[in-house]
Order: sequence, then structure tokens, then C-alpha cells
Amino acid sequence: MLYLQEEIMKKETIERIRKFTEDRDWDQFHSPANLAKSISIEANELLECFQWDEEHFDRQAVQEELADVIVYCRNMLDKLGLDEDEIVNAKMDKNEAKYPVGKAKGKADKYDKL
Amino acid sequence: MLYLQEEIMKKETIERIRKFTEDRDWDQFHSPANLAKSISIEANELLECFQWDEEHFDRQAVQEELADVIVYCRNMLDKLGLDEDEIVNAKMDKNEAKYPVGKAKGKADKYDKL
Amino acid sequence: MLYLQEEIMKKETIERIRKFTEDRDWDQFHSPANLAKSISIEANELLECFQWDEEHFDRQAVQEELADVIVYCRNMLDKLGLDEDEIVNAKMDKNEAKYPVGKAKGKADKYDKL
Amino acid sequence: MLYLQEEIMKKETIERIRKFTEDRDWDQFHSPANLAKSISIEANELLECFQWDEEHFDRQAVQEELADVIVYCRNMLDKLGLDEDEIVNAKMDKNEAKYPVGKAKGKADKYDKL
Repeated sequence: MLYLQEEIMKKETIERIRKFTEDRDWDQFHSPANLAKSISIEANELLECFQWDEEHFDRQAVQEELADVIVYCRNMLDKLGLDEDEIVNAKMDKNEAKYPVGKAKGKADKYDKL
Repeated sequence: MLYLQEEIMKKETIERIRKFTEDRDWDQFHSPANLAKSISIEANELLECFQWDEEHFDRQAVQEELADVIVYCRNMLDKLGLDEDEIVNAKMDKNEAKYPVGKAKGKADKYDKL
Repeated sequence: MLYLQEEIMKKETIERIRKFTEDRDWDQFHSPANLAKSISIEANELLECFQWDEEHFDRQAVQEELADVIVYCRNMLDKLGLDEDEIVNAKMDKNEAKYPVGKAKGKADKYDKL
Repeated sequence: MLYLQEEIMKKETIERIRKFTEDRDWDQFHSPANLAKSISIEANELLECFQWDEEHFDRQAVQEELADVIVYCRNMLDKLGLDEDEIVNAKMDKNEAKYPVGKAKGKADKYDKL
């Protein structure tokens, strides 16, 4: 797989997401629980792109729904004062321990079935 | 709200996520549809942190489940060759048009009810 | 497809579900919103049975997770004083109108794309 | 709580759901995995009724989305040849054992935290 070079969200984009919420005075609705519901709701709009046909999907719709999930994740990071890089690395530590290469390679089993 | 300064995921972290998948030969399981399911599944593990009590949640569990959602979003960006910054900005263009400040300020209504 | 004859949930089973909640004094947690979250959470445990392999699933796990979804749906019907038969028929009226046989036959398109 | 007397889905309604699918030749799309996705998608449309405000919800919308979840659950029962009454009772056996009244009464903790 060839990966894109310009793959990281820019600081300006994060600022734009924050300003969007602030300008609309929507922080009052952004409780952690409401944001968790919102992430699930958007994740399912993304899933709907693959509901009946997993091969021929609408790429434009996928991009938009995935972006919605990402924006709500950013809202939750902000709401809880979390550092994305830190929590992802902490979780990757756990994932690497739960799925050792020797056991997990080429298998889709859950860690407790390996 | 005071935001964290070090909030952007580092390139090294993105490389770590990619290497995790490659080392385990898991790219074969990462169809866009499977990743969409995975984002929804992890979003609901996050939601479970707020199932019966929305105020007193386990912050550690929230961080881990949110990180899982973010990692699968990264997997999907990579799988589809999408630039996170680009798709988020394209969606923010739409969101800003759908929810004009004058109409949406302080209201949680959906755009078609504004 | 051959359908089972004994397919309807018995009155005694509905009573059992209600008694389960009452005995544990759990009605206090069963707000409509909490039940909606619970239905989504259990639906995603069901979805997890098909996360990486849609053909070879654990039938026992599927039965249990599907039962969990059904039990929470029953809790919500009870909480809101809804008659299952009535709301399903009202929705089927709408579905039949939205997806006329002539247009929808053999197609998985959403009604607004037909 | 006062419960409705006429609460069980009628055999005719189950037949109506089956005929709806058959008339449209949609059984081909109803793989167990696709139905699991559909249950999650509809569960999240239900959840959306409670996204920002858990108290003032649109009762009509809730009824319709709940009905959609129930219809897809019926589709899955039919697809897998499952008896609703049987799988619900089997799961209630487990739930009653996992949450003994003495330990669980008045508490919303998960069984492994009781």
C-alpha cells in the first residue's frame, strides 16, 4: 500500500472545528455522553454506505461520513482535554501486547481466542 | 475551554499504526466495509462507558475506546488513500453552509428543522 | 425459506423480562435514551460476530446477542407503553408505500434512489 | 408501570414482514451479516432521536425507528431459522444467573463489577 504524504490534520483545521462549535454556542450540547452517541450515529451513517453491497460503494459519501466521525472524535478529545497522540500511543502499547506478531500474524481472531 | 497545545497525531504514530497492521499481515482483513463495521463496534464500546450513567464515567476506559475509534479511522483513511485534512475541510465547508451561525446559534436542531 | 411454526414470543416470556427488571429495581435506569443506547450497544455486539468474516460466524453467539437486542426492544416498548404489533404495522404501511414492488423488486437501492 | 395487554406481535404481522421481503425478492440481500449491519444502522437512527436532548424526544420518530429495529430482528430470526421465544428464554437464563437479585438490585454495574 502506498500512503499519502500529507496525511496529518493541520492545526488550522483543528482550530476550524473548534471555531465552528464556538461560533454556534454548541459547547453546551457537547457533553461526553452526547459526543459518544454522535460518534456512534455517524459511524452508522458510514456503515450504511456498505449496508447491502460492500464492493460498490459511494466514495464521496464514505469520505463525508468518515469526516463526520473524525470531527466528533476531535470534539471529544477537546471536551476531555485529551492529547490524541498520547492516547493513541497508550492504546497501541496495549494492542501490541495483546496481539503479539508471532501469534496474531494472518489471523483475525480476537486476542482471547489466539 | 482551554485546548491542549500538543494535540496533533505525530507522523511516527501514524507509521506505528501502519506497521502494526503490516507486521500482522492484517491488511487482508481491512476491507472498507470491515473497517466501517469496526468503527461502529468500537464507537459502541465507547458509548457503553455512558450506558447507564452519563456523569460518572471511567475516564481511562473512555480514552482507550476513543483511541480504538481513531485507529480504525486511520486504517480507513489509509485503505482508501484519503487525506484526513482534505476530507475534514471538505466536510466542514458543507457543515458551515448547512448550519449558518445566524440560524443555528444555541440550537441543537437538525439543519432541516432550523 | 421454510419458517418455524412456533415463532412468536410467549406472554410468559414477556412477563419474565418484566419481572427480571422489577426484581432488580432497574426500571430507574431504563430511560428511553438509556434503552436506545443499550439497543445500539447490543446491536454492535451482534455485528461483532460478523466483523472480519461474514460467512463463518458463531451461531451461538449470534443467538445470544440477537436475544439481547430483542429484550431491550421489549424494555423500550414497555417503557413507552407501545404495542409492538401496532407500531410494526404502522411502519410496514410506510415501507410498502416507500418501496413499491414494481420499482423495488430485486434492487437494494434506497427509496430516494429508486 | 402498567403494561399493555395486546402486546404480542400477531402471526399475521410476521407473515406481512415475510411477504414484504418475498414480494421484492430481497431475500438475496438478507445475509446474516447484512441484517446485523441493518439492525445497528436502525438502532442508531433510534439513538439519533435522543442525540442532544434525552427528555424531549419525537415520540412518532421513536416508534418508527424502534419498529425498524424490530423488523430487521424478525428478518434475522427468519434467516437463521431461530425461534424468538426460545432464544430469548435461553438468554434470560444466562442473565438471571449473571445478575443475581441479591447482588444486582438497584445497581447498574456490569456483572463483572458486582
